[in-house]
Amino acid sequence: MTARPLAIAIAGLGTVGAGVAKLLRDNADLIAARAGRPIVVTAISARDRHKDRGVATGGMRWYDDPVALADDAGVDVVVETIGGSEGPARALVEAALTAGKPVVTANKALLAVHGAALARMGGTLAFEAAVAGGIPAIKAIREGLAANRLSRVAGILNGTCNYVLTTMRERGLQFAEVLHEAQKLGYAEADPAFDIDGVDAAHKLAILAALAFGRPVDLAAVHIEGIRGVSALDIALAEELGFRIKLLGIATRSAGGVSTRVHPCMVPKGAAIARVEGVFNAVVAEGDFCGRVMLEGRGAGAGPTASAVVADLIDIARGRLTPVWGAEALDDVPSLPMEAHVGAYYLRLMVLDRPGVIADVTGILRDERISLESMLQRGRAPGEAVPVVLTTHDCEERQMRVAIARIAALETVVEPPALIRIEAL
Amino acid sequence: MTARPLAIAIAGLGTVGAGVAKLLRDNADLIAARAGRPIVVTAISARDRHKDRGVATGGMRWYDDPVALADDAGVDVVVETIGGSEGPARALVEAALTAGKPVVTANKALLAVHGAALARMGGTLAFEAAVAGGIPAIKAIREGLAANRLSRVAGILNGTCNYVLTTMRERGLQFAEVLHEAQKLGYAEADPAFDIDGVDAAHKLAILAALAFGRPVDLAAVHIEGIRGVSALDIALAEELGFRIKLLGIATRSAGGVSTRVHPCMVPKGAAIARVEGVFNAVVAEGDFCGRVMLEGRGAGAGPTASAVVADLIDIARGRLTPVWGAEALDDVPSLPMEAHVGAYYLRLMVLDRPGVIADVTGILRDERISLESMLQRGRAPGEAVPVVLTTHDCEERQMRVAIARIAALETVVEPPALIRIEAL
Ligand SMILES: NC(=O)c1ccc[n+]([C@@H]2O[C@H](COP(=O)([O-])OP(=O)(O)OC[C@H]3O[C@@H](n4cnc5c(N)ncnc54)[C@H](OP(=O)(O)O)[C@@H]3O)[C@@H](O)[C@H]2O)c1
Ligand SMILES: NC(=O)c1ccc[n+]([C@@H]2O[C@H](COP(=O)([O-])OP(=O)(O)OC[C@H]3O[C@@H](n4cnc5c(N)ncnc54)[C@H](OP(=O)(O)O)[C@@H]3O)[C@@H](O)[C@H]2O)c1
Repeated sequence: MTARPLAIAIAGLGTVGAGVAKLLRDNADLIAARAGRPIVVTAISARDRHKDRGVATGGMRWYDDPVALADDAGVDVVVETIGGSEGPARALVEAALTAGKPVVTANKALLAVHGAALARMGGTLAFEAAVAGGIPAIKAIREGLAANRLSRVAGILNGTCNYVLTTMRERGLQFAEVLHEAQKLGYAEADPAFDIDGVDAAHKLAILAALAFGRPVDLAAVHIEGIRGVSALDIALAEELGFRIKLLGIATRSAGGVSTRVHPCMVPKGAAIARVEGVFNAVVAEGDFCGRVMLEGRGAGAGPTASAVVADLIDIARGRLTPVWGAEALDDVPSLPMEAHVGAYYLRLMVLDRPGVIADVTGILRDERISLESMLQRGRAPGEAVPVVLTTHDCEERQMRVAIARIAALETVVEPPALIRIEAL
Repeated sequence: MTARPLAIAIAGLGTVGAGVAKLLRDNADLIAARAGRPIVVTAISARDRHKDRGVATGGMRWYDDPVALADDAGVDVVVETIGGSEGPARALVEAALTAGKPVVTANKALLAVHGAALARMGGTLAFEAAVAGGIPAIKAIREGLAANRLSRVAGILNGTCNYVLTTMRERGLQFAEVLHEAQKLGYAEADPAFDIDGVDAAHKLAILAALAFGRPVDLAAVHIEGIRGVSALDIALAEELGFRIKLLGIATRSAGGVSTRVHPCMVPKGAAIARVEGVFNAVVAEGDFCGRVMLEGRGAGAGPTASAVVADLIDIARGRLTPVWGAEALDDVPSLPMEAHVGAYYLRLMVLDRPGVIADVTGILRDERISLESMLQRGRAPGEAVPVVLTTHDCEERQMRVAIARIAALETVVEPPALIRIEAL
């Protein structure tokens, strides 16, 4: 091994940053062989200088200000594992790119919000760890499937949501109970909104869509719904109908443009993605030559995320570089609004068990030219509320929204209707 | 787009070669954007100059002798899609490497047999298409998971075998019937031995094991069994026991060395790999930091294979190079013999339904210190042959071989015992 070591700085020594330091230490020999040179941590930054990180930091230069790492002449590559789309993470990444240093980051929020502008700065910005943790999904889409015109990229992109939905189904529990338990087990954050409300998955989907379709990242265009509204009842009914409920991120390229959406979906139980359970993530890509490819694995945690960060470092050490969004020139294909979405729907109503109710509901659907695929009425309790489940053939989201508003306004419909889109993945 | 086009030669214009030409034509714009420069076919070779390849070849230089492509000064990269571990394919690859030209090949036989020697020649030799077709498995293992110490890599590596086993199960048919049908449908070759006897899967496994464990490819060490011996009865019994039968390639790294084997396996129905059906392939890798990652997709066919070949060309166009086996210096970790394999076994006997038979069989297993996990006797027909199924706890292959030989020699055992290894993947 004669090549000069690659000297890196790590900003942020939390779950991911400390994981990277540990991986570089534990697998140093193997990493050096695959990178063609040793990769050594020469500088670090975090908030608390005295916290035990579970990994020796002696001999590494300490910085209170992470942004200063960009100007350390002894640093070849900056690893940003602080997090957040603004503040020190953004300042550091911009400073490093300005200084001509390659950057490796796990920060999906930063990429999703500022990725287009960061790419325009030029330079190397690698982010395998930002999407689907230990699964080399970015590399697969940006390099492995690069010869294909992709029509769709989709996935289970948030392990917390998938864990909650899996546990609700397996144990017949309600959302709030499972979330509470997940927080105690460390599978969900104290403030779970980012995960549960679909924002984290939307960040990742925006990144995947930009790569898959070679266009600037457009987070604002992503339609986002989380899993708070998914009830134990709908999960049980899905099961009966042959579906499983998953929070999916789905980006589709059609003649008119690109649609990107994150929301709970009913997927057929037989579909490969339906069987990705618990904290596991999966990414599906469909291309004109490769067909459908699915990757699954661990989407978060110190080990998998560090594995992805260090893969990026090895690429940089080897000089294997790729433009941020896969190509220098990006397409300006427009984003499509959610109202234009066409698909099938699951609709679950709580209706008073009275004559004429079903006729009212189906009459509204007929008025909006939505055709029914199936109807299921659970139990009978004259005068009381009972669930009624309708599934539709393909229709436009905007028709469905009109229909839903009219149905919700019926005096006999006693709860806001539950609507879950059906996806054949 | 100002960069000089990458000029390539394609040797062999069959399923894969013509597919590559078609892909380069159909997605030329997108490939140029991702490669940073156009990729153009400037020279070609096949046996029959006048065959219609379904793609225009005007303007491309024709060679009767593929080896001459290596010396065409106008060719930057040679694509070898002739096939076979010897003959013109090998001669061409050696000539191109000698001439300092990067080579892209789909030829797993060549890589498995001569890959170690070819790597020693130096130069760029890319072979994403050689394993699992459209799935970017080589890239995932060699680059995406490069930071990990892998403990296992395994997969469904032959679509023909998986199709035959899936169809046998779904329709309750015997091997010979399904094979015959698969040949008529074009899913199996006229001479199916390479696929059916596990040789093709062994080539791919030898390649994956070399990459995963950073050591010279060692085809001779792979234990190979095909699927001819799998009966409809065993498939049905597997189903009852909660298993599915798959032809897997499995490479495992343990303290003592590397074991590589291709044979029919019983995998729990709930395992992700059990649900990869029909012509689909899958590759599983297990690493110390990434955990378990699984990739699935189409393992063969013109489109998926061309997708992989062109991904390699894009890497070369971008200057993204990797040593053939992932690192310059390879490990000399030894290969372990199959006799040292430790695992659980499914054993199905046809025994005469007579008193004492079971006692004889279980006595032999006890003598060889093999402990039973379960026993299942199907039906009763005094004096006639009935199936008896035994599953064992972990034991050594060499113990099992002794036991099997003794059991087969029992007068009351009327057919050679069927043995299928149980794998918890
Ligand atoms: N956790 C995962 O599984 C995972 C998976 C994929 C991607 N990611 C992404 O990886 C990034 C890091 O996540 P994480 O889970 O490792 O977060 P974390 O555990 O909260 O760690 C954040 C680190 O940043 C440091 N930090 C915060 N503000 C700082 C400042 N102003 N200056 C210097 N250091 C500062 C903290 O220092 P102190 O330790 O001193 O407080 C801490 O070490 C995020 O972008 C996240 O989205 C995480
Ligand atoms: N088919 C798949 O799905 C697949 C998937 C992965 C990898 N592969 C690998 O890809 C390679 C090619 O497979 P294939 O299925 O494309 O085979 P194929 O359809 O039989 O094509 C072979 C091509 O090589 C040409 N050829 C044979 N001998 C030649 C010679 N001496 N000089 C010049 N050209 C010669 C043939 O020419 P003519 O057409 O004139 O006869 C033909 O065009 C093999 O290594 C195979 O293992 C195939």
